[in-house]
Order: sequence, then C-alpha cells, then structure tokens
Amino acid sequence: MGALEEGHFDAESPAIAFGGGGGAPAAGTIEDAVRVLLKGLGEDSDREGLRKTPMRVAKAFREGTIGYKQKVKDIVQDALFHEAGLDNGVGQAGGSGGLVVVRDIDLFSYCESCLLPFSIQCHVGYVPSGRRVLGLSKLSRVADVYAKRLQEPKRLAHEICAALQNSIAPAGVFVALQCWHIQFPEALKLNLNPGHPSRSIMQGWVRTSASSSTGVFTEKSSSLCEEFRALLKFRGVSLDSNDSGGSSIHSWCPSKSLDLRSDSLASHSILVDAVASILRSLDEDPSRKELVGTPYRYVRWLMNFRRSNFDLMKNGLTNQLENVDRYIRGGNVINSELNLPFCAQCEHHLLPFHGVVHIGFFYGTERKAIDRPGLQSIVHFYSCKLQVQERLTKQIAEAVHFVLGNGVMVVAEANHICMISRGVEKVGSNTATMAVIGQFAMDATAKSSFLEAISKSTATGG
Amino acid sequence: MGALEEGHFDAESPAIAFGGGGGAPAAGTIEDAVRVLLKGLGEDSDREGLRKTPMRVAKAFREGTIGYKQKVKDIVQDALFHEAGLDNGVGQAGGSGGLVVVRDIDLFSYCESCLLPFSIQCHVGYVPSGRRVLGLSKLSRVADVYAKRLQEPKRLAHEICAALQNSIAPAGVFVALQCWHIQFPEALKLNLNPGHPSRSIMQGWVRTSASSSTGVFTEKSSSLCEEFRALLKFRGVSLDSNDSGGSSIHSWCPSKSLDLRSDSLASHSILVDAVASILRSLDEDPSRKELVGTPYRYVRWLMNFRRSNFDLMKNGLTNQLENVDRYIRGGNVINSELNLPFCAQCEHHLLPFHGVVHIGFFYGTERKAIDRPGLQSIVHFYSCKLQVQERLTKQIAEAVHFVLGNGVMVVAEANHICMISRGVEKVGSNTATMAVIGQFAMDATAKSSFLEAISKSTATGG
Repeated sequence: MGALEEGHFDAESPAIAFGGGGGAPAAGTIEDAVRVLLKGLGEDSDREGLRKTPMRVAKAFREGTIGYKQKVKDIVQDALFHEAGLDNGVGQAGGSGGLVVVRDIDLFSYCESCLLPFSIQCHVGYVPSGRRVLGLSKLSRVADVYAKRLQEPKRLAHEICAALQNSIAPAGVFVALQCWHIQFPEALKLNLNPGHPSRSIMQGWVRTSASSSTGVFTEKSSSLCEEFRALLKFRGVSLDSNDSGGSSIHSWCPSKSLDLRSDSLASHSILVDAVASILRSLDEDPSRKELVGTPYRYVRWLMNFRRSNFDLMKNGLTNQLENVDRYIRGGNVINSELNLPFCAQCEHHLLPFHGVVHIGFFYGTERKAIDRPGLQSIVHFYSCKLQVQERLTKQIAEAVHFVLGNGVMVVAEANHICMISRGVEKVGSNTATMAVIGQFAMDATAKSSFLEAISKSTATGG
Repeated sequence: MGALEEGHFDAESPAIAFGGGGGAPAAGTIEDAVRVLLKGLGEDSDREGLRKTPMRVAKAFREGTIGYKQKVKDIVQDALFHEAGLDNGVGQAGGSGGLVVVRDIDLFSYCESCLLPFSIQCHVGYVPSGRRVLGLSKLSRVADVYAKRLQEPKRLAHEICAALQNSIAPAGVFVALQCWHIQFPEALKLNLNPGHPSRSIMQGWVRTSASSSTGVFTEKSSSLCEEFRALLKFRGVSLDSNDSGGSSIHSWCPSKSLDLRSDSLASHSILVDAVASILRSLDEDPSRKELVGTPYRYVRWLMNFRRSNFDLMKNGLTNQLENVDRYIRGGNVINSELNLPFCAQCEHHLLPFHGVVHIGFFYGTERKAIDRPGLQSIVHFYSCKLQVQERLTKQIAEAVHFVLGNGVMVVAEANHICMISRGVEKVGSNTATMAVIGQFAMDATAKSSFLEAISKSTATGG
C-alpha cells in the first residue's frame, strides 16, 4: 500500500484491504472504494450532493459491465426465423443472401484504458444463409452484450462480429463502429486556441473508427463491402477505406499519452488501489495486460477535479487581471465571449459533463477589463471540480461580476455523460442553464440581445 | 359479442369472454386477445414468425403503459439538492431562479386514439426556487412516467408540467413537446404524388407540438418564455408562438378522420372486443371518453394488413400493366424508380415499419413496360400485410422480375417502430435490405451504379 495522504483519511474510514490481497471482494466494495476516491478528491462524502454518489457510481459500473454476465445464445436462440431464398432465378435475397444492414445503433461502452464511458455509433450488416434471418433488434442486443464491458473499439468490433458469425452462421458479417471518447482536460487545455475554438475541441471528443468482417465480406472478388459502405453513405456515414478489418490497435484513449510515472501519482496509490478493487468487484482482472495502467489513469482523470480551497475571486482573479491592458468600454454596450469550452465532473455520478459557456457582460466605468483568456481561466477554475451545472453557471457569473461589477449573463450548454450512458440513456439530450446578475436582471432587451448573439454564433458554426 | 367471421375462429380457439362482462381480466388475456387479432388478420398464429408475437405484443403494451404504476414522488424525493442562490447582487442563478433547460429528450408514448406508438422530442425548463434543484436526469424520468401511458400530446405536456410543479415546487415549469405520429396507409395512399414524393409523406409522419407552463412562465411581464424559446433555438428547435399553453385539443391522430360507422367494422366486432379486453388488462377503462372509439380504430389500422390470398404476380400484375403504353428501352440501360414510400406491419411485434423502396431494373426486349404507379402498386401490395423487411424486399424483387425478366435490384430502407419504442429503444436506427435478381447478380458495376443513383437522390432530398 502506498503513501497515505494524511488528513484525508481519518479514523472513521472503514478498514478496507485494498491492494494485492487478491481475495474475493466483500459486498459493497465498489461503494467503499468510491468513498475513498471522494476523500482523495478532498471532498466530504457525507455532504448532501455526494451522499448517494458511491451508490450511483457502483450502479453505473455494474450496469456498464453487465455484458460479462450475458450470453449471446440466450438472445439469438428464439429469434432466428425461417425465410425462403429466391423462388427462382439467379440472385440473392431473403434467407439466402441479400445484404441486411442496421445502421446508426447508439451504444455506450467503458474504455478499458481509463474507465470513462465512450460513445459508439454501430452499424451491423450480414448476409443471411441457410434460409434463416435474425430478428433485427437482436443485432443491436448482441452488439450491446460486448459494449457493456471494458472495451477498446477494435476489439469491440471483432467481438460483435465473431459472436454474430458464430451464433447465426450467415454467409458473412460486417461490423463498423464510429467511436467518440471524451478528451482529458490536460489535452483540452493544451489544444485551446481562444481565437478559433473549433467544434471538435469545444465538444471535447477524440474520434476513431473500427471495423471487422467475416465470410463473404472478406473475399476480394466480392463487391459486398462496397455495397455495405454505400448503404451507410445514404445516412451520411463515411467509413475510412482502411476500415475493412485488420488488427492494429491504436491507443486512441487520450489517457495513453499521459506520463504515468510522475511523482504526483505515488502519493495517490491508495486511490489507485481503490480503483483496482473496483475492477476486481466487476470480475475483471486488474493484472490483465490492457488494464495494468487503468487504475492509475482513472485516478489521474479524477485528480483533475480535486477540490481546491483556493478562492479565485478573493485571491487570484483580480491580480491575474491586473496586467490586462485594454480599452474599457463603459456604459451600455454588451460585450460577449462565446463558446468557451469546459469539462466538469458531475458530483452525483463521477462522470463528466462538458460543453461551452457563453458570457455576456457590461463593463463598469472604473473597473479592470477582462479578456477571453481571463474568462476562460474563470470557466476552467470552476469546472475542474465536482460540480453541478446550475452551480457552475452561478459561480462563473459571480466571479465575472466580482471583477466587472455592472452586470453579467452566463449561459452554459452541456452534454451530461450521466444522462447518456446511464439508466435513462437519452443520447441526444443537452442541458442549458442561465444565470444573470446586475444590469441584465432588470433588462429583458439586454438578455434577448445576448441570446441572439449566441444564436448567430451557433448558426455560423462559431 | 358481434358477428363472428366464420372460418377464422375454429374449434381450437380458447373460450375467452371478451366484451361487456367488465370483470377483472384473467392472466394472459392480452396474449389471448392478440391471438384473436391474428386470426382476424387471416393469419395462423402457430406459424413460426407469429408464434411468440402475442407474448411480444403483450410485453410491449405492458411496458408502454408502465407509467400508470410509477410514482413521481419516488423519482423526485432523493434527487432534490440544495443549491445556494446568488451570494449577493440582483439577479437569478443557482437554486434561486436562473433557467434550467434539458433539451431534446427522446420519448415514446402510445396514442390513446389508435394505440399506435408516437415519437416525442421533449424539452423541459424550470426556474428553481427555495434553493433546491432537481437532478437533471429526473426531468427526463418524470416526463417518461406520463409518456408511458395512453396519451395525447396536449394532455401529456400538461401532466408532465403539473407533476414537476407539484413535486419540486419551483418558480415555474415549461414543457414543450414535438410529436410525430405515423400516418395511416389510407392517408398515405391518398397523398401519394408519384412525381414529387415529399420527405414528410415518404416518412409517413403527422407532426404536432404541444406545450404547457406554470408559475413565472405564465406571467405576461416575464421574458422567461422568450428565453426558453431562445435556448431551444440554439438546437434548431422552433416552437410555434402559440405553443405557450392553452387547452385546445386537436385531433391530431390520423385515425380520427376515418369513418368508423362503415359496414366493414361490424363484421370485426369480435376483434374490437379483443382490443377492449387489452385495454382492461392494462387497467384502462375502455369507456373513458377518449378511449371510446380506440378499439375500433386500432382494428381498422390492423385490417390494413390483413392477409390476402390474392396472388399479385400470377393473376393481377401483368393484366394491370397491359394498358401501359410506354417506350421500352431494351439492353443495358438501368432504369430506376427511387423513394417509393411504404408502410408495413412487423409480424413479430404488430408494429409498423415504414420507409422507402428503391427499384432498379433492366427492361427485357419483349416485355411490358412498368411505370412508377405500377411499381408503387407492387410495393403497396407486399407491404400491406404482416411482414419482415427481408421478405418484403425479396417479394418486391421477385414480382418486378416476373414482369420484366431481365434483372432487378431492390433496396428497402425503413424505420422499425419496434426497434425504437420497445426494449432496445434505438431511436436513430434504420434498417436497409437488398435483393438482386438476374443481370444485377452478375454485374457489380450495375449494382454500384444503382446505389450511386440512390445516394444522389438522397443528397438532393429527392
């Protein structure tokens, strides 16, 4: 067991044996491990917003890895239906050939490198044979059996493909995945180009694609791969032409590029042990090759959201802004900085929510100016912790108001991974929150002008 | 009990008392009722594809009305979190004002007029008060409690709104719904304009919107409604300006315009009684004002998909085509008719799947010509029955090949309501199937030219 961060672990901590023991984990281990992580983040796991977080996180991990307990056979066995092939003539159709493709299946999986969920758009095609077809919804269910595990895109594509080939014995299967992984805040910061925030950086996704095929799809003489691609193209999906198989595994997870040997991690080894115990509770083997660095990486991710006692408003912010030398417009002109990216951690689920913040403000006549990097610092400061979006919006508004004093309006727009990957699975949902202080509160026209400015920037892709 | 259609109900039918008895329904009633409906459709409920249909339909109805058994209090009680309002200054934010909006929540509900599922995009906004906010995912969960009932858009909006107002006591709630109801085949046929198939007709949706608001959103002096609308506009959602409330109920369901007094229905009264028994099994009251015509309308819908013994290929099709006087191009020119709309009924779930069919073909030198209305008739004939998409595609290809003889390629693209509204809930998924006969089977270039033609038509919105 590594060095304890004294003070974070008090006498009330239950005596849990994390680490190399290797025995069967006791019931409740995930919840206990999450409590250890919360303490490691400098949080009080008894405060209202966090009280049920261990339970919620444990539930999410269990649901997110339920695929280990599911059998493809159970799903497929009652859903193979006899369909005749062609009555006569040369060709392919029905249960004897004739491509069947289900496109745009939304799935979620957990990244085996860092334990964060990643988003998948899955396209499955197969060519029936033996006069049998599979109920269409089962293609999605079988894919989900393998998505609900700790995964990596390439292996996921292979496993779905092999399972379908083995269970329905068609002439061939083609599985194509497009995957999106949330960016790590470190990378988000490094890539930040305040002048030209690109959509992909704003939304904080790393994208990759993977595919796998069997049978007739692997035959050079067959045009089936081209036809599969053409059917996807109707829906606006373009596969890379090198997506037809192969076994090279890119390290697409952004955590792979982090240096895990830094000193800061040694002091977190009790947290790393806690994460390893979560893996064991999920019947995973933390010593499996692909998982060796995972607990470190997950802790590294969490540590971005450590509680800070530093009071940005009272200590840091005004000093930081003292060097800004810029013409200050007083009076009634609305200034705005739009699409400032952020990534915060939902305190109820320990899952990220991320998006953009728009800030509108009036300059006071005797106050400092504030520029885009200054506002981005404020956004970054308040998002890098366990948060809820309503509070984040309020805190950013208050901080800006503290500096400028005349009136601030903040609109935050975010995708909540907890809304997408957990129980309710509302993939397209997006949350907007608003806070107004000072002049904006009394001036409906000012509010509406600022909202109009955001609307225009959205329309032009800014 | 009404007139029996003799011959459809043999001695093996279980003696089920449908109709006015009013007693508590016995276990298994929905399954039995579905078997009655299948016989009424001229189907053998023991054939492979239908054997488990009664079980699947019963499960779907039970899951689709589970909201009657759910309590909003159970969902909300542990998810109200303390959030401070503004520390100082004039304004709204956090737990004291400051708009919170969750946009683009995908839901499904069952139409109380015809028992078909309808699709909902739900947007919920509220203004916190009393220094409390609700966990964001609960807005979606509460909405779903009311969606999972027999519904009508306006009432659904009112019920979600009232439930949120009562359970979280905020300063106000705004609920806006955009709803899509599948078109009835009768209406689909009437509106068919072969020359200019519009997207909305092809996709077979009737659209409406509804909204409801409470508290500060109803105050004339408040700009909050405008701000709610502006936040939706960022996501490309435009609410009608008359969507701010009101209680007028449009009869949006296309079944409402059907004439229910026609003679054809009298002969189906045993089916109507079966549907009424399904309603009772779901703890609904078939004599509730809004449900009075529902069993009739659902039966009317189903009867569009009655099994026909008429053999289109051998009896009707070539005669029908004899009057077509059109220049016939022989040889190697690919002819194509794209985006022919269809609506079929999935035999596994008794739920519609609908979309478009693309047909490519070579004319034989001594054969009849076939025009777009002729092809549309073929598509219509094979889709208006209990089907699976693979078989539909094959049958259309075979029918066209029977007439033309030289080579046919059919691509069908469909949304399956069963994939969207039932268990797997893959809202964006779409299925494509392909069949090729004759010349196309040997000619990869012909296949690829035809697919390219579809791709172009999709790109130009044709």
